[in-house]
Amino acid sequence: MAYIVDLRSDTVTKPTEAMKHAMVNSALGDDVYGEDPTVNALESKLAAMLGKQAALFVPSGTMANLIAIMVHCNKRGSEAFVGNQSHIYKYEQGGAAHAAGVLLSTITNKPDGTFDLQELESRIRGTDVHEPITSMVAVENTHNCCGGKALPLKFLDDLSAICKRHNIPLHMDGARLFNACEYLKEDPSRVVRDCDSISVCFSKGLSAPVGSGLVGSYHFIEQARRMRKLLGGGMRQAGVLAAAAIVALDEVVPLLKLDHKRANIMAKVIEGMFLKSFTVDVEGQHSNIILVRIPETSSLTAQKVVARLAQVCLAETQGDCKTPDDEGVIVKAIYFNSKTVRFTIHREITDEALWLAIMKITYVFKELDATA
Amino acid sequence: MAYIVDLRSDTVTKPTEAMKHAMVNSALGDDVYGEDPTVNALESKLAAMLGKQAALFVPSGTMANLIAIMVHCNKRGSEAFVGNQSHIYKYEQGGAAHAAGVLLSTITNKPDGTFDLQELESRIRGTDVHEPITSMVAVENTHNCCGGKALPLKFLDDLSAICKRHNIPLHMDGARLFNACEYLKEDPSRVVRDCDSISVCFSKGLSAPVGSGLVGSYHFIEQARRMRKLLGGGMRQAGVLAAAAIVALDEVVPLLKLDHKRANIMAKVIEGMFLKSFTVDVEGQHSNIILVRIPETSSLTAQKVVARLAQVCLAETQGDCKTPDDEGVIVKAIYFNSKTVRFTIHREITDEALWLAIMKITYVFKELDATA
Amino acid sequence: MAYIVDLRSDTVTKPTEAMKHAMVNSALGDDVYGEDPTVNALESKLAAMLGKQAALFVPSGTMANLIAIMVHCNKRGSEAFVGNQSHIYKYEQGGAAHAAGVLLSTITNKPDGTFDLQELESRIRGTDVHEPITSMVAVENTHNCCGGKALPLKFLDDLSAICKRHNIPLHMDGARLFNACEYLKEDPSRVVRDCDSISVCFSKGLSAPVGSGLVGSYHFIEQARRMRKLLGGGMRQAGVLAAAAIVALDEVVPLLKLDHKRANIMAKVIEGMFLKSFTVDVEGQHSNIILVRIPETSSLTAQKVVARLAQVCLAETQGDCKTPDDEGVIVKAIYFNSKTVRFTIHREITDEALWLAIMKITYVFKELDATA
Amino acid sequence: MAYIVDLRSDTVTKPTEAMKHAMVNSALGDDVYGEDPTVNALESKLAAMLGKQAALFVPSGTMANLIAIMVHCNKRGSEAFVGNQSHIYKYEQGGAAHAAGVLLSTITNKPDGTFDLQELESRIRGTDVHEPITSMVAVENTHNCCGGKALPLKFLDDLSAICKRHNIPLHMDGARLFNACEYLKEDPSRVVRDCDSISVCFSKGLSAPVGSGLVGSYHFIEQARRMRKLLGGGMRQAGVLAAAAIVALDEVVPLLKLDHKRANIMAKVIEGMFLKSFTVDVEGQHSNIILVRIPETSSLTAQKVVARLAQVCLAETQGDCKTPDDEGVIVKAIYFNSKTVRFTIHREITDEALWLAIMKITYVFKELDATA
Repeated sequence: MAYIVDLRSDTVTKPTEAMKHAMVNSALGDDVYGEDPTVNALESKLAAMLGKQAALFVPSGTMANLIAIMVHCNKRGSEAFVGNQSHIYKYEQGGAAHAAGVLLSTITNKPDGTFDLQELESRIRGTDVHEPITSMVAVENTHNCCGGKALPLKFLDDLSAICKRHNIPLHMDGARLFNACEYLKEDPSRVVRDCDSISVCFSKGLSAPVGSGLVGSYHFIEQARRMRKLLGGGMRQAGVLAAAAIVALDEVVPLLKLDHKRANIMAKVIEGMFLKSFTVDVEGQHSNIILVRIPETSSLTAQKVVARLAQVCLAETQGDCKTPDDEGVIVKAIYFNSKTVRFTIHREITDEALWLAIMKITYVFKELDATA
Repeated sequence: MAYIVDLRSDTVTKPTEAMKHAMVNSALGDDVYGEDPTVNALESKLAAMLGKQAALFVPSGTMANLIAIMVHCNKRGSEAFVGNQSHIYKYEQGGAAHAAGVLLSTITNKPDGTFDLQELESRIRGTDVHEPITSMVAVENTHNCCGGKALPLKFLDDLSAICKRHNIPLHMDGARLFNACEYLKEDPSRVVRDCDSISVCFSKGLSAPVGSGLVGSYHFIEQARRMRKLLGGGMRQAGVLAAAAIVALDEVVPLLKLDHKRANIMAKVIEGMFLKSFTVDVEGQHSNIILVRIPETSSLTAQKVVARLAQVCLAETQGDCKTPDDEGVIVKAIYFNSKTVRFTIHREITDEALWLAIMKITYVFKELDATA
Repeated sequence: MAYIVDLRSDTVTKPTEAMKHAMVNSALGDDVYGEDPTVNALESKLAAMLGKQAALFVPSGTMANLIAIMVHCNKRGSEAFVGNQSHIYKYEQGGAAHAAGVLLSTITNKPDGTFDLQELESRIRGTDVHEPITSMVAVENTHNCCGGKALPLKFLDDLSAICKRHNIPLHMDGARLFNACEYLKEDPSRVVRDCDSISVCFSKGLSAPVGSGLVGSYHFIEQARRMRKLLGGGMRQAGVLAAAAIVALDEVVPLLKLDHKRANIMAKVIEGMFLKSFTVDVEGQHSNIILVRIPETSSLTAQKVVARLAQVCLAETQGDCKTPDDEGVIVKAIYFNSKTVRFTIHREITDEALWLAIMKITYVFKELDATA
Repeated sequence: MAYIVDLRSDTVTKPTEAMKHAMVNSALGDDVYGEDPTVNALESKLAAMLGKQAALFVPSGTMANLIAIMVHCNKRGSEAFVGNQSHIYKYEQGGAAHAAGVLLSTITNKPDGTFDLQELESRIRGTDVHEPITSMVAVENTHNCCGGKALPLKFLDDLSAICKRHNIPLHMDGARLFNACEYLKEDPSRVVRDCDSISVCFSKGLSAPVGSGLVGSYHFIEQARRMRKLLGGGMRQAGVLAAAAIVALDEVVPLLKLDHKRANIMAKVIEGMFLKSFTVDVEGQHSNIILVRIPETSSLTAQKVVARLAQVCLAETQGDCKTPDDEGVIVKAIYFNSKTVRFTIHREITDEALWLAIMKITYVFKELDATA
């Protein structure tokens, strides 16, 4: 049996012991009647942390974003601007269009997760009957497909100025908001200060088993609650999940800096190998996601790299790439496209796991680089 | 402090100790990757119990029904037939129309939860371009608004013959399917034999904290999985919830007969009071839901009855309507309309709670009847 | 060659000579720019006739109704009440659900096209998160499937009082509004007085080739114009159609009373035959639609009757059922269901055509009645 | 009164005398019953011209495109690829998302109206549950916002090879298809050879008052007919419009080359002025649309240019920019954005109108250039 280091996503994190304790010892009630005290406590706590009026616990980040779109885009023929590398556009199955009837207009993400604000402003629609109604702008922070980048505050401030000028709500897909805050060394309430709504994920780096929070004004959350019911996101004794999320906010958020530190180490090690086939942007290494790029001209594909990392060859267990008890190491990773491999560091990646992963990754990268 | 008996709904049930134990001791994984062994075990178990190929764990019964509609109604301009007293039509916010674009055509429910099959067949649409495409029929079993009635097998058999003849899928909203099976003394696989899809709720009488199952063929569930993701119902370590649901199937389903017995007692007591203002159909008392009807001509309203049951008057605590330690009793109930009060019996209603509730209800009914 | 009398629908009417003259001699422009003077003239004229602020020319009555629903039902999870025999529910393919995401809730039409107002009021939803938002009520006047009945003013007044009390917009599908006004001997502006929007069809009894008008407040029409564009109902030199519609309003509306008179004659003739197989409600004969009912117990079907009327048997041309030049007569009709045949009188049914049709119908009815 | 040359769009064209004659002298019927012989003739004729099985007459190009999307994107969670400069994305109000629930994914148009085929292929989605289902690709030919460019056959051939390989239908928004054919000197059936559906507009350069054609296989058109009804695009005696469209195909299509010739002259004149503020791509001048670009760095805006062209200054009527009878000239134009003015040549722009327009445009351009 090989030692497995699962770097596919921080979504694989399992609940901590403290979470488990909270899950079975917290007061429960029927949240559809608004009577689950633990859900209510989580919603109040999250809203307060983000400096907003109210919050809503929902089953997933996808639903949180979908609900935000449904509430903000409240006119027929509405359009929401999202990055062309955003999770909303790429990985939420077009639910905004299908279930909410909203046109997603994409704006090209820069490598740092931002986009051209002048282009955005020039594309905001007027009142012509041929055109949709621009009803929302969404940003993602940290930005997954851009390698876990935290958006610069300056960008958010400038963007919100444009949104306010045109009276367009600003939503932040903050699935990994606390990672952004850790990088920026800013309080969450500052980072989301000018956002009208924010989604936050408890089940990624925060390690809770299930759930996301949607945050905004009283009025926004009141409408969001209706939409949650419509989509079937209303849950009964949801306190069992909320209890874990509360622990996540209290106990796991402070640990995110360790994930960042470890991700930084891994990035630097890969960069330090100076291989022609694999590059990492160490300068842009903000948080827990490491993107390894393969040159477009290389014959290597990310699929091949991922497949190789998931295998243990005989040579490995007999040579330098084995665990102390002579097993090999498997590193699980994913690819964004044929030239980009993603590693994600999370709470379950201890220093031991990190070093075994690095041993394996460097072994495989050298091997592949030699034959590429 | 009054003693509270919550008969509003079986959704208020809290997890059992065995569930809590399972929730924190079951193997977990990322269910979006299909890797949560507990979710997989629950899905297999439920599918097997219902004699179908596959199942899917979802956050709520509303989502289970919505997904079934989305999968069956796969042509633009589709229509689904549902009872005019069904949960799908009355209490799911029109999600079938709003999020799935499906016309809900209602057919009048008879008091026993069935509907006129001849009328149904006559209303199935042809191919005229003016008309929607009849794509689905849904039944509800037990039928909530019809007082928890189990649908007769004969009705299901006749209905499915019509559906097969016209090649129209049949869905069962089996939120309380196991209550129906208990009443009918039939195996679930027999009751749902001719259904193409079934939703089952774990968080009602079954007492699990959160979740429903959607059951059908491999092909159906494959598509349902896509729809769950679109709606934002994909959850990560959902095994924490599935673990409780497995316990519910194993340990709570066999206890449902106690709920039925207690509901029967309550119904008989109310009937035996022979009051002019309150009637119960004891013959039609199938399961855990008791509907108390107020005559249309009465000046009493269900709202008033529910409000009175939630109060404790001085006279009560000084007289015959108090708990052993001299407190009063509050009974929480809901009303379906201005002339119908609903009581729901569930696992948390012990014999003691039952008798205190009956004491209170009879006290209040007499009082109100005297002044009506 | 038989003589054909087409009583299927008043939609088969062809433009009059005056319409044709107007179509090629009216000023035109690009209506998408709002520059077609003839369209503008029609819209102003229609709005004035109905005593409302504004109107919009659209390609069809189906689109007019759909747009009204889209504008009134402007909240996610909206519900519109319509009669269960209404055109909107039966013959518009569920577009309200599919293209507009609106739940159509049906209320049972009485034989006179009205419905129970107490039931309506009791079904208006509250604010519970489980329920859709009641956003609109629609009536149909005259009511096609109820045999062209004009709705009593008293009903409209009482209904509008309920709608106002609950702040719910009232829409009238007035595809045959002018037929209703003719029967009621009331000005259109009185009939629609309390309606927030009205659709009117130019291409039914009014004989224009194409188009409907949607009428309401400035604010309503402004939004309707956007919805028309979204659906693809914006047309360029639509003045060619509007020109005919203006003639229809001026010259054909006053002739509707002839259609009614002729329909009345036909109804009375059929009633006067005293056949066991065919009945007509002469008292309820309000306008140009005649419904012939076949007893449920009869072995005859409406399909059979319609098919027989479309044939000419040898006996007919040799006997009493032939035209002056010895041809037979074909009467085209449609059926609403297996026991209801519909005849529709319109401008092209002259006295001669009427009498030939009556000759044929009485011949066939006697024949079928004898063998039924 | 100034002499007005309306170059805003070819949609402003009014019907010819021959069209008017046909409109009032063609056989009519009820097209909803499929009985309008003129509509049927038009549909057959158009299908034959494009080498496809069937066609459908609809009120507008927007509806034609929307219907094509509705038919091709027949799975929930579908995505259609369209150019980011396409009419479908920019000027159809997001109807694909709102009324059809389809995600529009934009791909950047090159200046010639094509897009990067390698990028397209790389963005076709797989089967991952996070992703929409790529269900359609649409091209626009000629391409309006790219200045009326005809797409190279090579591009279409290569694109269709990709679509076939991935089993994805290819739609052509051929609102100005015949302009493309004229430029390419190719038969329409060759240009659309590999398209699964095509929309064609009769009311642009073809000068018919109203309507578009949607063309495809029998199976496609059968479904399109249902969608037309759902959207409210079914019209009754639509033959009055179809008659003009037939004349358009017979008599106006052969005249499009004159529009192209005149547009070419205008483009060359503007280029020949060698002004710093206004450029035209004469090489890319394929058809009847002329785009005048203003440098990004200029202080001039397209809005200002359009406004100035719509005015007549005293100096003009007293100097070199007047009509033979001493009036001034107004040129109506539109702008695509702040740096792009569009002139569109059409049947009503005679040589006289052309020269007066050129006189005015050169006068204004010089004036503005001098002060810019």
